[in-house]
Amino acid sequence: MTLSLEKIAQLIDATLVGNPAIEINGINTLKEANKHQISYAVSDNYINSLCSTKAGAVILPKKLKKHCSTNTLLVDDAYLAFATISHHFKQYNLTVNNSLSKAIIDPTAIVENVTIGAGCVIGKNVSVGSNTILETNCVIEDEVSIGENSHIFANVTIQRDCKLGKRCVISPGAVIGSEGFGNVRDEQKNWQSIAHLGRVRIGDDVAIGANTTIDRGTIDDTVIHDGVKIDNLVHIGHNVIIGESTAIAANTGIAGTTTIGKRCMIGGMVGIVGHLTITDDVIVNATSTVNRSITKPGIYTGFFPLMTHSGWKKAGMWLTKLDKITKILKIKLKNLK
Amino acid sequence: MTLSLEKIAQLIDATLVGNPAIEINGINTLKEANKHQISYAVSDNYINSLCSTKAGAVILPKKLKKHCSTNTLLVDDAYLAFATISHHFKQYNLTVNNSLSKAIIDPTAIVENVTIGAGCVIGKNVSVGSNTILETNCVIEDEVSIGENSHIFANVTIQRDCKLGKRCVISPGAVIGSEGFGNVRDEQKNWQSIAHLGRVRIGDDVAIGANTTIDRGTIDDTVIHDGVKIDNLVHIGHNVIIGESTAIAANTGIAGTTTIGKRCMIGGMVGIVGHLTITDDVIVNATSTVNRSITKPGIYTGFFPLMTHSGWKKAGMWLTKLDKITKILKIKLKNLK
Amino acid sequence: MTLSLEKIAQLIDATLVGNPAIEINGINTLKEANKHQISYAVSDNYINSLCSTKAGAVILPKKLKKHCSTNTLLVDDAYLAFATISHHFKQYNLTVNNSLSKAIIDPTAIVENVTIGAGCVIGKNVSVGSNTILETNCVIEDEVSIGENSHIFANVTIQRDCKLGKRCVISPGAVIGSEGFGNVRDEQKNWQSIAHLGRVRIGDDVAIGANTTIDRGTIDDTVIHDGVKIDNLVHIGHNVIIGESTAIAANTGIAGTTTIGKRCMIGGMVGIVGHLTITDDVIVNATSTVNRSITKPGIYTGFFPLMTHSGWKKAGMWLTKLDKITKILKIKLKNLK
Repeated sequence: MTLSLEKIAQLIDATLVGNPAIEINGINTLKEANKHQISYAVSDNYINSLCSTKAGAVILPKKLKKHCSTNTLLVDDAYLAFATISHHFKQYNLTVNNSLSKAIIDPTAIVENVTIGAGCVIGKNVSVGSNTILETNCVIEDEVSIGENSHIFANVTIQRDCKLGKRCVISPGAVIGSEGFGNVRDEQKNWQSIAHLGRVRIGDDVAIGANTTIDRGTIDDTVIHDGVKIDNLVHIGHNVIIGESTAIAANTGIAGTTTIGKRCMIGGMVGIVGHLTITDDVIVNATSTVNRSITKPGIYTGFFPLMTHSGWKKAGMWLTKLDKITKILKIKLKNLK
Repeated sequence: MTLSLEKIAQLIDATLVGNPAIEINGINTLKEANKHQISYAVSDNYINSLCSTKAGAVILPKKLKKHCSTNTLLVDDAYLAFATISHHFKQYNLTVNNSLSKAIIDPTAIVENVTIGAGCVIGKNVSVGSNTILETNCVIEDEVSIGENSHIFANVTIQRDCKLGKRCVISPGAVIGSEGFGNVRDEQKNWQSIAHLGRVRIGDDVAIGANTTIDRGTIDDTVIHDGVKIDNLVHIGHNVIIGESTAIAANTGIAGTTTIGKRCMIGGMVGIVGHLTITDDVIVNATSTVNRSITKPGIYTGFFPLMTHSGWKKAGMWLTKLDKITKILKIKLKNLK
Repeated sequence: MTLSLEKIAQLIDATLVGNPAIEINGINTLKEANKHQISYAVSDNYINSLCSTKAGAVILPKKLKKHCSTNTLLVDDAYLAFATISHHFKQYNLTVNNSLSKAIIDPTAIVENVTIGAGCVIGKNVSVGSNTILETNCVIEDEVSIGENSHIFANVTIQRDCKLGKRCVISPGAVIGSEGFGNVRDEQKNWQSIAHLGRVRIGDDVAIGANTTIDRGTIDDTVIHDGVKIDNLVHIGHNVIIGESTAIAANTGIAGTTTIGKRCMIGGMVGIVGHLTITDDVIVNATSTVNRSITKPGIYTGFFPLMTHSGWKKAGMWLTKLDKITKILKIKLKNLK
C-alpha cells in the first residue's frame, strides 16, 4: 500500500509544502517514522520531536507552519487528518480466501456484492448491502438487514429482525438483539420472563465494540441513532434510545428504557439506571453512577476518590457517620442553601 | 401467528368481557395497537391511553374493570399475564433450515428430538433433552448435559462436564465452565495457575445473559440454583453459589467462593468480593460494592452521588480529609453511637 | 488418570511420609476425599478436617508435620503444590475427535503438531507453535503467530497480526486485536474513527479470561508482558502496557495508553482511566477508580462503603454538602495539613 504525498494532500485537503512525488507506505510516530512514512503533530508539545523526525512527511496544523523542516501537509485539524489517512493504510482483507470459505447462506438471503467469510451463517430473508464485509463465523439471523459498506467482524451475532444502517462497524463477539432482562415475579416469587418482541434498530455510521451486547426492545425497539460510537463490553438494555453522535466508552452499562441525548460523551464503566432521560451534550466522567435524569448540559462526576487503603478506611468510616456528625454539630440543612 | 381472544383468556386464566371469537395476531402498546393486537395496562396511570386505544383487546387488572370500553381480559396481575402471552407471539425458528445445516455431532452424543443449528459442535457423551434448541455455532463440549425444553442461543460455549437443567435459556456468546481465576505466587512472585477440576451446575428455569461468563469450581462446583435470572456481561467466579429465584442485572461481578441467598435482587454493575455470604431476600442497588457479608434481609446501597464535576471536586476533596476535620472538631467515635 | 504417590512427590519436590506405592486418581477437599484421592491443607485452620479426613494422602506445609496421620507429602508451600498437581488431573482433550473436524486452514499457515478443533478458521501466514491446542470455532486471522504449548479455547478471535508467546491460555470468547476506541470529532461534531494500525503483543505464560477484549494499538502496539494473568470480561484499551506478572481480576477496564507496572494486583471491576502510569507492586482493591498516576507501591482503595439504603441516602446527601459544611464551620484547608 503506497500513496504519493500529493494524493494524501488531496485526501485531507491539505496545503503541501515540499515534494508531492514522494511515496508514503505507512504512518508512524515522529520518533519512529522512517523516510517512507508519514507522521503528524497536533500541538507545540511535539516541536522537539518534529525537529528531529526522520519521517518522509508530517501533517501539521497551520499554526505550526514555522516548524516545517521536512515535507509538510498543513491542515486545520492534524488529528482529524491523521484519522482520515489511517484508514488508507489499514488492511481489511478477509482471513480466508473465498475458495476455502464454507459459509451457509439461506437461498432467500440477498447478499450481492457482499464479502462473506468462512463459517458465516446467514438466515432467511436477510438483506445485506453491497460492499459490506461479513467476517468469519458471523451469525446473521432471519429477517436482519444491514446497509452497504458496513463491516461485521468475526464471531458477531445479529439476532432476528434487527436493522443496521450503512457504514456500520461491529467488532468481534458483539451481540445485537439479545432478549431484554424483563422478568415478572409471580405469587410464589418466581420470575416469569417476558419474551421481547421489539427489535434493535441501528442507524448509519455506528460503531459497536467487541463483546458489547445490545438487547432488543420489549414491544417497541431499542434505537441507536446515526453516528453513535460504542466501545467494548458495553451493555445496552432493552428500549434504550441513544441520540446521534453520542460516544460511550468501555464497560459502561445502560439499563432498560433510558434515553440518552445527542453528542453526549459517556465515560468508561459508567452505570446508568433505567427509565432516565439524559439531555443533549452531557459529559459523564468514567465510573460515575447516573441514578437521576440530567436535564442540563454539562460535565457530571460521581466516584469515591482513590486513597491509600489506610486513609480510605478512615474517610469511609467517618463518611458513614456524617448524619450523626451533623447532628452533634447542630448543622441544619436549611442553613446550607 | 394468531390466537382467538378466548384462547388467550384460557392461557392467562382471565375473565373475558367482550367477543371471544376475535383473532389477535400481536401485542402492542395502548397507543400503537391496532384492532388485531392486544395491549395491557397495569395501573391507573394508563387510564387516558386506555380510553383512546384502538387495540382489539386489553388485559386489565380487576381493579381497573370500570374502564373497560373494548374487549377485555380481567386478571389479578396484568403484567404477569402480559409476560405469559408474550411468549406465544415470539418466533423462535432457527436461522437456517436443517437441510442446510452442517453441525458436527460426536456419535456418542444423545440428541434425540433436539433442534441443532448450523455450525454447532457437540462433543462426546453429551446429553441434550428433547425439545431443546441449540442455535447456530454453539459449542457443547464433552460430557455436558442439558435438560429438555431449553434454548441455547448462537455462539454459546458450554465447557466440559457442565450440567444444565430444564427450560434454561442461554443467550448468545455466554461462556459456561471457563477456568476460575485461581493463581498462586511462587517464590519468584510469578503466578502459577490452578487447574479447575469442578464443574458448573445450573438448575431448572435459569436464564443466562449474552456474553456472561460463569467459571467452573476449583474442586467443588459452581452452582446456580433453580429459577435464577442473570443478565448480560455478568461475571460469576469459581465456586460461587446463587440461591433460588435470585436475579442479577447486567455488568455485575461476583468473585470466587461467595454465596448468595434466595430471592435476592442484585442491581447492575454491582461488585461483590469473594468469600462472602449474602442471606436471602437482600436487594443491592445498582453500582454498589459489597465487601462484607450481609446477614439481614433489606435494601443496601453504596455509590458516590452524581454531582456536577466542579461540585464533585470539592466534595471529594473534603471527603478525603474527613479524618482530619473530625480531629480538629474533636469529634469522637464513641459520641456517634 | 492415576499417579502413584511417589510420582506426585517428585512432581512437587515433597518429602514423602507413608506408602509411596498407593495410586491416586483425583484431588478433593479434606472433607470429601476418598482413599483414592489426595487433599491438602495450608494452615492450622484445617487441623480438625485433617484429623478426620479419609483422603489417601495429604499435602502439608512442613510446619504441620506433627499432624500427619495418613500418607503425607511435606512441602514448603502446600497451595503452590496443589496448583502444580491440579494440572495433572485435568482433562484437556478436544471436544470432537479430528476425524470429524472441519477446520478451514489457509495453505500458507504453519500448524505442525498443532491440535485444531472443528470449525476453526486459520488465515494466511499464521504460525502456531507445536503442542498448541486450538479449540472449536476459533478464528485466527492472517499473520497471527502463537507460541508453543499454548491453549486457545473455543470461540476465541485473534485478529490480524497479533503475536502471542508460549504457554498462553486464552479462554472462550476472548477477542484479541479489536480496533481501539479512538475517534476524532469533526467540525460538525460527528465522530471520525481512527484505523488502528498497531498490534497486540502478548508474552509467554499469559492467561486471558473468557470474553475479555484487548484492543490493538493506534500506531505502536498494545503490550501484555510475560506472566500476566487477566480474568474474565476485562477491557484493555489500545496502547496499554502491562508489566510482568501483574494480575487483573474480572470486569476491570483499563483505558487507552495507560502503563501498569510489574507484579501489580488489580482487583475486580476497577476502572483505570487513560494516559496514566502505575508503578510496580501496586495493589488496587476491587471496584476502585484510578484517575491519577500512582508512583509509590502500596495498597490503594476508593469506593463508597455499603450501607442500608436509608443510611446511604443521609450519608450521601451530607457528602454532597461537605463544602458548605466546612464553610459554616470555618474549616480551612491549610489547617488540615
